[in-house]
Amino acid sequence: MPKLRIAMAQTNPCVGDLEGNAAQVLDWSRKAAERGAHLVVFGELALAGYPVEDLALRETFVTASARRIERLATELEEAGCGELAVLAGYLDSDAEGVRNAVAVLHRGAIVARQFKHHLPNYGVFDERRYFAKGTGLDILRLHGLEIGMAICEDLWHAGGPLAALREAGVDLVVIPNASPYERNKDDARFELVARRARETGAALAYCNLVGGQDDLVFDGDSMIVDAEGSLVSRAPQFVEHLQLLDLDLPGGAARTGGPVAGFETRRITLGAEPLPDYPSEHGPFIAEPLGDEAEVWSALVTGLRDYAHKNGFRSVVFGFSGGIDSSVCAALTADALGADALHGVSMPSVYSSEHSRSDAEELAERIGCHFRTVPIAAMVADYVGTLGLTGLAEENVQARCRGTLVMALSNQEGHLVLAPGNKTELSVGYSTMYGDAVGGFAPIKDVPKTLVWQLAKWRNAEAEKRGETAPIPPNSIEKPPSAELRPGQQDTDSLPPYEVLDRILADYVEGDRGYAEILAAGFDPELVNKVIRLVDRAEYKRRQYPPGTKVSAKAFGRDRRLPLTSAWREG
Amino acid sequence: MPKLRIAMAQTNPCVGDLEGNAAQVLDWSRKAAERGAHLVVFGELALAGYPVEDLALRETFVTASARRIERLATELEEAGCGELAVLAGYLDSDAEGVRNAVAVLHRGAIVARQFKHHLPNYGVFDERRYFAKGTGLDILRLHGLEIGMAICEDLWHAGGPLAALREAGVDLVVIPNASPYERNKDDARFELVARRARETGAALAYCNLVGGQDDLVFDGDSMIVDAEGSLVSRAPQFVEHLQLLDLDLPGGAARTGGPVAGFETRRITLGAEPLPDYPSEHGPFIAEPLGDEAEVWSALVTGLRDYAHKNGFRSVVFGFSGGIDSSVCAALTADALGADALHGVSMPSVYSSEHSRSDAEELAERIGCHFRTVPIAAMVADYVGTLGLTGLAEENVQARCRGTLVMALSNQEGHLVLAPGNKTELSVGYSTMYGDAVGGFAPIKDVPKTLVWQLAKWRNAEAEKRGETAPIPPNSIEKPPSAELRPGQQDTDSLPPYEVLDRILADYVEGDRGYAEILAAGFDPELVNKVIRLVDRAEYKRRQYPPGTKVSAKAFGRDRRLPLTSAWREG
Repeated sequence: MPKLRIAMAQTNPCVGDLEGNAAQVLDWSRKAAERGAHLVVFGELALAGYPVEDLALRETFVTASARRIERLATELEEAGCGELAVLAGYLDSDAEGVRNAVAVLHRGAIVARQFKHHLPNYGVFDERRYFAKGTGLDILRLHGLEIGMAICEDLWHAGGPLAALREAGVDLVVIPNASPYERNKDDARFELVARRARETGAALAYCNLVGGQDDLVFDGDSMIVDAEGSLVSRAPQFVEHLQLLDLDLPGGAARTGGPVAGFETRRITLGAEPLPDYPSEHGPFIAEPLGDEAEVWSALVTGLRDYAHKNGFRSVVFGFSGGIDSSVCAALTADALGADALHGVSMPSVYSSEHSRSDAEELAERIGCHFRTVPIAAMVADYVGTLGLTGLAEENVQARCRGTLVMALSNQEGHLVLAPGNKTELSVGYSTMYGDAVGGFAPIKDVPKTLVWQLAKWRNAEAEKRGETAPIPPNSIEKPPSAELRPGQQDTDSLPPYEVLDRILADYVEGDRGYAEILAAGFDPELVNKVIRLVDRAEYKRRQYPPGTKVSAKAFGRDRRLPLTSAWREG
Repeated sequence: MPKLRIAMAQTNPCVGDLEGNAAQVLDWSRKAAERGAHLVVFGELALAGYPVEDLALRETFVTASARRIERLATELEEAGCGELAVLAGYLDSDAEGVRNAVAVLHRGAIVARQFKHHLPNYGVFDERRYFAKGTGLDILRLHGLEIGMAICEDLWHAGGPLAALREAGVDLVVIPNASPYERNKDDARFELVARRARETGAALAYCNLVGGQDDLVFDGDSMIVDAEGSLVSRAPQFVEHLQLLDLDLPGGAARTGGPVAGFETRRITLGAEPLPDYPSEHGPFIAEPLGDEAEVWSALVTGLRDYAHKNGFRSVVFGFSGGIDSSVCAALTADALGADALHGVSMPSVYSSEHSRSDAEELAERIGCHFRTVPIAAMVADYVGTLGLTGLAEENVQARCRGTLVMALSNQEGHLVLAPGNKTELSVGYSTMYGDAVGGFAPIKDVPKTLVWQLAKWRNAEAEKRGETAPIPPNSIEKPPSAELRPGQQDTDSLPPYEVLDRILADYVEGDRGYAEILAAGFDPELVNKVIRLVDRAEYKRRQYPPGTKVSAKAFGRDRRLPLTSAWREG
């Protein structure tokens, strides 16, 4: 049985960085060639980055991408990788429009191209805004093996390129992806890949990107399944990785295929001679999947690290309140950028408890980061006295003094400001615009409060397992949460217990469920009403909130787009 | 020749307000019936509002919309409008998905339905995210006349429903629209409507919404052209309006038509007896189009008024700097909400000039609004002293003190905060996040600085024509612009002259042109480079900026969606 040495390169491109991304493709292709691979596949749009959003409407950018891939073909040959078939995603355009494309580079030329057929236009995706749908099918004849291509969303549809490839008859389908991380998505992915492999009657090689791009994180998790749907290779998540596999393929699949309807099919021969017989060096390798908390944590670390680095920041600053949210953000920052990159500020007001100051200080000690204290009582008194502020106005001034101080430190010292709010707060509007909401990035904005606690406990336990200092002060995990904006305030004064609140929010925000359906789960009608109203009324706050890593099935932002002005009320 | 009395109801619905919007349809239908109309047409999605965004994914909302239109049919008959054919837009759903639909209500029932065929997915539109494409064609036989329907984007395509209606043969095509205002769009619209009428061989009745919805404003401008493409009726812009017209139609168009390919065609007879002969009472009426400045001004007034009112605000507050931007925002507010709804605050720092204080005071006097002065020098000194701030950090603290004060007044007194920044500033990042950028709405965020001046002069001249006090202090128009964040600062210290800057920005931001193409217009390469870099780097500021009325062909926000993280650089 012919044996193909296939390499899957899980790279971390940066949107718009054609030179840097091309260097990655060249680099990893060289490594694959050195290790004797016949074919190397990269993730979707590995040359342009994903998603490029309205850069796809910029003619200069699309043209530059198409030219860069041509040059890359030459560079690959010059680097001695000419015999290797390199499958790299890039942007192209023709009379029909802009294309989400994969090029096959071989012996210094682009020998084949595949355009994405199914263009996702839901959730975080807007591909029908940008791309024309491909209706071609370029099939590679590589040393007697028939290799088809499909791109990301094409995999999620039984019809289209995969059905066409089944009809045509192929031994292997290679699928570059830019599939953003969501909790539990990895399980769904494997099942889908396995099912499609069986349907298509071919092995499937699924290659995903890794790394963060604004609010998205790509988790890698690239995999190969055989034609029976059995997993034979799975790359680790969240790390750049080159996976090699000596894959036995029957060959001659084309002889079993018939004519293909609806797709212009081309067969491109890359090497007529059959693959030589060689001893297997790269057998099945299946990376251990991460546990639930480890996976979310890795996604958050990756999202924060890449947002900071890709935007030129080496350090961050934010307020240490002594509470659980800022503590978890501090631990994430230390894991993402190192403790030395973290500048914590305690900004106590007259309502700040003794424990909030000591917990903040303890956090800084445990993590080993920079820390200073800037009391805000005098500034707050100035605003309050000048305008005669009371109630909510007085509470918010405290948060806004802190926001102004943190931004001043950012301006003065060049740190990225983080907003440490969680998804539950953001859902119900329990935050102060231009106060605790200031920042360039919000690492846990898609993490519900109950999961924040769970992650804190998990991270501390991990540290203890490794014999390290647990980063988060136990008191920050255990004490009842409070914004400390008035004497003796606790979150539960105005909000239901977080365990209940998060379940209602999961139904309403992530599930898009209506009032009656939420009530059917047994919640108190008055409470559901109140929560829905809080969520609806806080839309304007969310609109101005910084971006942050998506980890749920529906994150605020491009995933959930609601009007600010809306009179619709559930219930 | 049969004569149809057609009514076009240019209403101002609120997104999500099914009850309020249904009451509008009922009310205006009653008026049309009282005046003897045979048919009344409303704008696109007049019952649901436009755009509903992700409310279209909420099953409860779509179901409620479909039920409400059924009830409306009954209510119309009970109100004595049963004989009137009412064409009202609403959301529906079936096995294919959610529909952007028009229902024809007649004698207490829904007698016909048309679903939008062409779903726009560019610019500010995301309709392929929400809607399934309609492939039916319901043609009304109303007293012997053949009346077809198409919805908004369908008009912009020669193929699809309009081509199908030409083949079928109709006397009249009725087209509900939700077409957002853009400068100069009205000219393009008339030419398009006239062309399509000639192509289709039928009169066209184009009915648009009016009013503001977040960053969009619908300008009305509803019109009817005859089958030769001559304008016979045109409604005024930006006002709710019921336009009646006795329209001569040849009749019997169906006899000239043939079979229609690709559309399921139904003919629905609403009244077999021919229209009686009656004397014309409603002849051609063509509203005088607004001049360019008046049109932009009306759009800005409408956008601000509806954002405030539809979100429950009766008053606004913002800083009066004495400069042109806050002056124009003040004049807009007075026109939109009344001078008594406006609360101006002068917040001088140590760098504020004498003229900036006196110009702010003069503005308040001219307009007759509320006004107070809150000096910020002591607060700024407190921040600066505590953290040892210098340079940009010190400049920004001044803006953020003002932001905090204005927000405190909003919290204390319940006003909507306006951000008075213009499009030029927003383009190059010449604003302070959480400082002058605070606010729930930014009335002139899509107005370039040069147009701000032009509007100021125009508004003052209009006042003088009417014998009123010009609202804007002449000195605010004439003095060189300055942020006054350091001694003697002027905008031109760090920016090119606004006349040049706005032309480069028109090319780069609105035109999406590349470096070489911009240079071809004769600009200095170094300057173009600098401007492009300023624009690219300010994306994170724009992302957190409040919404504001779109008046240009490409506004920041949903019209121009760029990644925050991007290494792509023109040049």
